Amino acid sequence: MPSYTAPIKDLQFILHDMLNVSAQETPGYAELEPDFTSAILEEAGKMATDVLAPLNRVGDTEGCTLDNGVVRTPAGFKDAFDQVKAGGWPGIDLPDEFGGQNMPYIMYTAVGELSSAANQAFTMYQGLTHGAASAILAHGTDEQKAKYLPKMTSCDWTGTMNLTEPHCGTDLGLMRTKAEPQEDGSYAVTGQKIFISSGEHDMAENIIHLVLAKIPGGPEGIKGVSLFIVPKFLVKDDGSLGERNGVACGKLEEKMGIHGNSTCVMDYDGAKGWLLGDMHKGMRAMFTMMNEARIGVGMQGLAQASVAYQNAVEYALDRLQGRAVTGTENPDGPADPLIVHPDIRRSLMDQKSFVEGGRAFLLWSSQLIDQSHRGGDAAAEGLISLMTPVVKGFLTDQGYDMTVQAQQIYGGHGYIEEWGMSQFTRDARIAMIYEGANGVQALDLVGRKLAQDGGKHVMAFFDMVKTFCKENGDVEGMAAFTEPLKAASKDLQAAGMFFMQNGMKNPNAALAGSTDFLHLFGHVCLGLMWARMARAALTALENGASDAAFYETKLATGRYYMARRLPATGLHLVRIQTGADTVMALDAAQF
Amino acid sequence: MPSYTAPIKDLQFILHDMLNVSAQETPGYAELEPDFTSAILEEAGKMATDVLAPLNRVGDTEGCTLDNGVVRTPAGFKDAFDQVKAGGWPGIDLPDEFGGQNMPYIMYTAVGELSSAANQAFTMYQGLTHGAASAILAHGTDEQKAKYLPKMTSCDWTGTMNLTEPHCGTDLGLMRTKAEPQEDGSYAVTGQKIFISSGEHDMAENIIHLVLAKIPGGPEGIKGVSLFIVPKFLVKDDGSLGERNGVACGKLEEKMGIHGNSTCVMDYDGAKGWLLGDMHKGMRAMFTMMNEARIGVGMQGLAQASVAYQNAVEYALDRLQGRAVTGTENPDGPADPLIVHPDIRRSLMDQKSFVEGGRAFLLWSSQLIDQSHRGGDAAAEGLISLMTPVVKGFLTDQGYDMTVQAQQIYGGHGYIEEWGMSQFTRDARIAMIYEGANGVQALDLVGRKLAQDGGKHVMAFFDMVKTFCKENGDVEGMAAFTEPLKAASKDLQAAGMFFMQNGMKNPNAALAGSTDFLHLFGHVCLGLMWARMARAALTALENGASDAAFYETKLATGRYYMARRLPATGLHLVRIQTGADTVMALDAAQF
Repeated sequence: MPSYTAPIKDLQFILHDMLNVSAQETPGYAELEPDFTSAILEEAGKMATDVLAPLNRVGDTEGCTLDNGVVRTPAGFKDAFDQVKAGGWPGIDLPDEFGGQNMPYIMYTAVGELSSAANQAFTMYQGLTHGAASAILAHGTDEQKAKYLPKMTSCDWTGTMNLTEPHCGTDLGLMRTKAEPQEDGSYAVTGQKIFISSGEHDMAENIIHLVLAKIPGGPEGIKGVSLFIVPKFLVKDDGSLGERNGVACGKLEEKMGIHGNSTCVMDYDGAKGWLLGDMHKGMRAMFTMMNEARIGVGMQGLAQASVAYQNAVEYALDRLQGRAVTGTENPDGPADPLIVHPDIRRSLMDQKSFVEGGRAFLLWSSQLIDQSHRGGDAAAEGLISLMTPVVKGFLTDQGYDMTVQAQQIYGGHGYIEEWGMSQFTRDARIAMIYEGANGVQALDLVGRKLAQDGGKHVMAFFDMVKTFCKENGDVEGMAAFTEPLKAASKDLQAAGMFFMQNGMKNPNAALAGSTDFLHLFGHVCLGLMWARMARAALTALENGASDAAFYETKLATGRYYMARRLPATGLHLVRIQTGADTVMALDAAQF
Repeated sequence: MPSYTAPIKDLQFILHDMLNVSAQETPGYAELEPDFTSAILEEAGKMATDVLAPLNRVGDTEGCTLDNGVVRTPAGFKDAFDQVKAGGWPGIDLPDEFGGQNMPYIMYTAVGELSSAANQAFTMYQGLTHGAASAILAHGTDEQKAKYLPKMTSCDWTGTMNLTEPHCGTDLGLMRTKAEPQEDGSYAVTGQKIFISSGEHDMAENIIHLVLAKIPGGPEGIKGVSLFIVPKFLVKDDGSLGERNGVACGKLEEKMGIHGNSTCVMDYDGAKGWLLGDMHKGMRAMFTMMNEARIGVGMQGLAQASVAYQNAVEYALDRLQGRAVTGTENPDGPADPLIVHPDIRRSLMDQKSFVEGGRAFLLWSSQLIDQSHRGGDAAAEGLISLMTPVVKGFLTDQGYDMTVQAQQIYGGHGYIEEWGMSQFTRDARIAMIYEGANGVQALDLVGRKLAQDGGKHVMAFFDMVKTFCKENGDVEGMAAFTEPLKAASKDLQAAGMFFMQNGMKNPNAALAGSTDFLHLFGHVCLGLMWARMARAALTALENGASDAAFYETKLATGRYYMARRLPATGLHLVRIQTGADTVMALDAAQF
């Protein structure tokens, strides 16, 4: 049975040593003093370790069941959900006027990593609710906000996102679900949606579905899509629940993982819905949810890698097998622990340097969101818009690879469900797919975000890297970070240049390199994060920090990333520079 | 529901155009005329497509059940097994004196890919039997051969390999199972073995377990391990079955995949066993099985990638989503098929170029085995000994990545079990682990095989590459193959040089790069395979081959590999050359 320990010290290091959050001008950040954030994270960590982690395998083995339209969650989920609600966790960053705690988004993300690592399938029930509440917050009328947000902030009512239909996933312009205007101002929503996470379950009094649908007679394709609020139970004016709406779960999907989350086929049969935001502007409203959801999915990739890594370390320290090639290290035992073997180390260092770098990347991105949403910082908004596909795609692709590596440490036991490592891998797999498959993220990055606003956001990123290297390159101990970072950033610039020179005449020449570019970009981001963390660690050591070992470990882990992982940028550049010729050489029939 | 089509044309291309098998002097090869191999492969393909593939999902969803010591295989498995036996497939390469067909091993591998792609879990029942029969063939007495081999060749009796115990996997010196000599010359075997594939089931009259155990009083550790034949039912002198032996399945493991295969905990309680081969030389006898088994596992990695790729292509051609960025390609439809998108192409080309290159690598390796075993060619024996960890590690690591990529093409449907793509990934995952986890393969390669016989086998490989490039580099169209191959081979040599210069003083400096070296080597091997296939395709085109499109496709696919995949060697070299410093920097407690 795997275990989970919240990485509180590491989160605190990123929040305070690296990002220095309480000194930032972003509204709400001044309150983020170390004592405060530590108290929050300690509590969240307890909840994750004591309440959520023990239910992770239960959720996987039991799964959800559908019986006569009623979906039952695994044993223990409802109790745990009540505890999470009682702790006020779901609304940690939502406005206090609706019952939330109004903390910055960065705290929502930090806490979210802990819940998600402990139990991804469970945490999705809150996560989807949060996304739906954010969309109502951004696009709802005052009446809609008053009606839905208090109950959604507390998770007494949960939320869902309904986009996909059997014949359309990424290409939502093909949507068939229709919403017909009614005399009372509502719409009658009819159609089938699939892959609806938390679509139906037994943990909330009501479920508020946000549904994309087309109003007959509107524009063709994606421009005729609107967003609707469709509650499971209609809500009366006094806030009490009225009659059951015309929406039901038609089927639960059997999936590779996240079995504890109910993934539903949702059938809408003239269900009463209300327009959320402007008519035919559903995609815009949905994207409010989706950008946040994409950061959240990046977090899931990181979180599974984090818990899988912890358990891999434990096994590598515990399992005795073979002898160190440089001489016995455990002479009193029948064999040395796995961790003495260089290739086991290589794997653990891959994992550790990714997890800690990725965690910094995630919190730094969350800070950008706060700077944008709370601080009205247009530069931060542009940068996070650029970064969103990188956070989602890079952290989930790499996060998955790391769960696979962690599973590999266990040898045969990694393949046996009882040990729990398979579940981490199976659960992590979905994060590469949903909220826009990673290929779509790469397309978004190269085809849209890179050139957004004349390319000024990517230029701002390059400047940030350059400035950092200039200001810190001469600090003793920093060359091992700034020199590889400069080289990697140069690769990224060269890739961008290749796209500019070739993408205009042939867009395929750029798009054939889109996934490589996303990974190249992700590595440079993690390189920057490691360089910043190294600088923070050196400062702490200079200042005589009491736990020098922590900071020395941080530096050694960072040097591993810079030496062993970051050079991947060179390979991605080589691939990108081959353009589209070999990629597009075959006719479809030749495959 | 996924489908499977045997890649017969591609196998024939490798056998005849590239390897020119019927012109080789290896005993048995002269008979491998195109008409003959085609007939064999067509029949095997029909069995795979019509009988085995339809049971793949059944096996996954039903799994095996254990009830009162009796293991039941999924519905339909027994009938299918009877059909496979009736076709004579299990003994295709076993000696005719025991009822086999005495074909070369290369044909066993070619047929094995088809069965394994169609149904990996099912095919393992025969595969293990084949491995056990090979060990008896190599190390058994005439009496043992006569007693067991006819029934094992036909698969009336199946076989197993019993190595792992709860506390020892790779490090078999820690073994506790004991074998006590009895007065009648047999041994009483007592102990517990885990992860025993096909350990108990209902498809055969008898099961012949090959069990590693220690004879009390023998040498310590691995030098005191012997191999025993322990039949489920004792075999009387007239060949009929006698009493039940003291061996039983104590538990079925719940696994991530290969649910159709019974993975058993086997309890031996004074079971009657007979020494196979020499006392205390059990590892040597077991390695006869294991080297073959490792090639077979490499085949599994390739096979799952192959079937996953086929289904990914089908979906990419069929699923309409979005429009080509260079202009609509399906103006009459609501959208273009996925295959128009460059990143989908990139993924499919990754898969296609791996599958076809890997298939050539596997058959070339099988040819080396034939040259060694049938032809007594010492150079081939040395080369395949060097290559075995590369075949196993590279084909399974990369094969797994490719099944993940194929699954990704399906978007959300890839995560839903009904579509079958998840099963390919889950089944492929085991191949990286069993028969020596891939980290152990890398250790075997760098720590043992590379320097074997003074390093002459790796030098022979370099010579082979060099000679090929010299002889073919000037042929029109070949520079796109020989130039990248030369560069990649240079990277491999530089890595070997780094190990020589640094590994003596610090073995960790070499072993920290072992996994990178295995992959670097694998890429160079596939580069060589593609160069040889390109040469064969050019020759066929020069000779006016009727199906020019096939050969043109082959060349284009190869050019993709050389341009986009082979440059990975550079990154592996960079990582290797960082040595052990960053890998071994942390104390165990710092993780």
